[in-house]
Amino acid sequence: MLHLVLGGARSGKTRYALKCVQQEPPPWYYLATAQPLDAEMQHRIALHQQERGEQWRHLEVPFHLAATLQENLLGPLVVDCMTMWLTNMMLQGYDVAAEKRHVLHALERAGKRQHVVVVSNEVGLGIVPENALARRFRDEAGLLNQELAQIADHVVLIAAGLPLVLK
Amino acid sequence: MLHLVLGGARSGKTRYALKCVQQEPPPWYYLATAQPLDAEMQHRIALHQQERGEQWRHLEVPFHLAATLQENLLGPLVVDCMTMWLTNMMLQGYDVAAEKRHVLHALERAGKRQHVVVVSNEVGLGIVPENALARRFRDEAGLLNQELAQIADHVVLIAAGLPLVLK
Amino acid sequence: MLHLVLGGARSGKTRYALKCVQQEPPPWYYLATAQPLDAEMQHRIALHQQERGEQWRHLEVPFHLAATLQENLLGPLVVDCMTMWLTNMMLQGYDVAAEKRHVLHALERAGKRQHVVVVSNEVGLGIVPENALARRFRDEAGLLNQELAQIADHVVLIAAGLPLVLK
Repeated sequence: MLHLVLGGARSGKTRYALKCVQQEPPPWYYLATAQPLDAEMQHRIALHQQERGEQWRHLEVPFHLAATLQENLLGPLVVDCMTMWLTNMMLQGYDVAAEKRHVLHALERAGKRQHVVVVSNEVGLGIVPENALARRFRDEAGLLNQELAQIADHVVLIAAGLPLVLK
Repeated sequence: MLHLVLGGARSGKTRYALKCVQQEPPPWYYLATAQPLDAEMQHRIALHQQERGEQWRHLEVPFHLAATLQENLLGPLVVDCMTMWLTNMMLQGYDVAAEKRHVLHALERAGKRQHVVVVSNEVGLGIVPENALARRFRDEAGLLNQELAQIADHVVLIAAGLPLVLK
Repeated sequence: MLHLVLGGARSGKTRYALKCVQQEPPPWYYLATAQPLDAEMQHRIALHQQERGEQWRHLEVPFHLAATLQENLLGPLVVDCMTMWLTNMMLQGYDVAAEKRHVLHALERAGKRQHVVVVSNEVGLGIVPENALARRFRDEAGLLNQELAQIADHVVLIAAGLPLVLK
């Protein structure tokens, strides 16, 4: 089962995703796409790890998400989050279209074997950014969310920790 | 029938709007408010035209939307989008309040004769912009969306290509 | 009864909140957290006061919201809005965590005696702000909205003046 959890910054989407997989017995896998590049990031990642417990197996996949998903991890898993993975792809000059195809295919296959909850940021509901790279990122993230929603069995939009069911 | 389709950037709102009118037999009218002022815009407009087919009649109405709506076009139509029209009005120094009155009246009348699907961007869910013009635009766009929602028979908010029914 | 009304800029959330308490007999209390610091703000506040009538008792509580809520005001009340109160706290260097605890406790107690409608902005659905203070504010506002939603009996997200029920 593939479950897409969309939401804004600090909307409670990760907490919601964790709760979803914790309905099943552990171990649970947490696939983190963030890279601890600066102090602000390190702080956020450390806070998130603290919130989770020891029954979680933590994997860092800033780039090789598709390959990790193909490794047949035995247990439900959370991918947090797709917009950070997209950022990594764009900043490192990867072929975004090709990488996206691999990841979407890997997510679809994983969702057929196990419970997969994918977290992604909704970033397109503010004013048009002045920065061209931010505009390109906003477009890519919006398209990626549409493609994720197409292959997902369930889609929710989280606001203030509460879900609105989209699919 | 007047149908308002709200959504963020790259949320799939245009695709949703096109599908709505394609439930009915062609020809379908596509009223584009975008002006191909720079390469980024031209690219977006060309992509959108490519996605649609030959059964669509394409009209460019960056300014004279109300007049075009009064021309009694025979068939269902999509107006894409109101926030771009508002941008054109503001940047060219039109009397926004007066122009809005004309357009809202024309949309309401058109919606009584035929199926009209109006697309508009939701732009108020990010942080307050530092730029005063962006703040004014955000306010005007929010008010316009409220006024459109008041006269619309149906209103949806699109996220990741999927609709949340508001009315 | 504690009712949380979330929404973007100019989404119609204040109008919706006012309508909620006007279901009950007057007097109604309007607790404004905005400070008229510049012309743009003064204009917004004046417009809002004009829209309301004489049956509203107007209190300005940019800082002492918790204390005012404990004063046992007799009648339904609107608090507009929590993100502005949070801005005031952050800009004046208050201990945000401590002040938040007081306010959440006061709102929860007030909601047990009377009808309280709390308005708050959703600000996390745009692109990541470049400004570090804006990022911190976005995080704090997101967390505050989650905490408000936890103690609220009802939560709605407003778009174009129309509610989506979250709780």
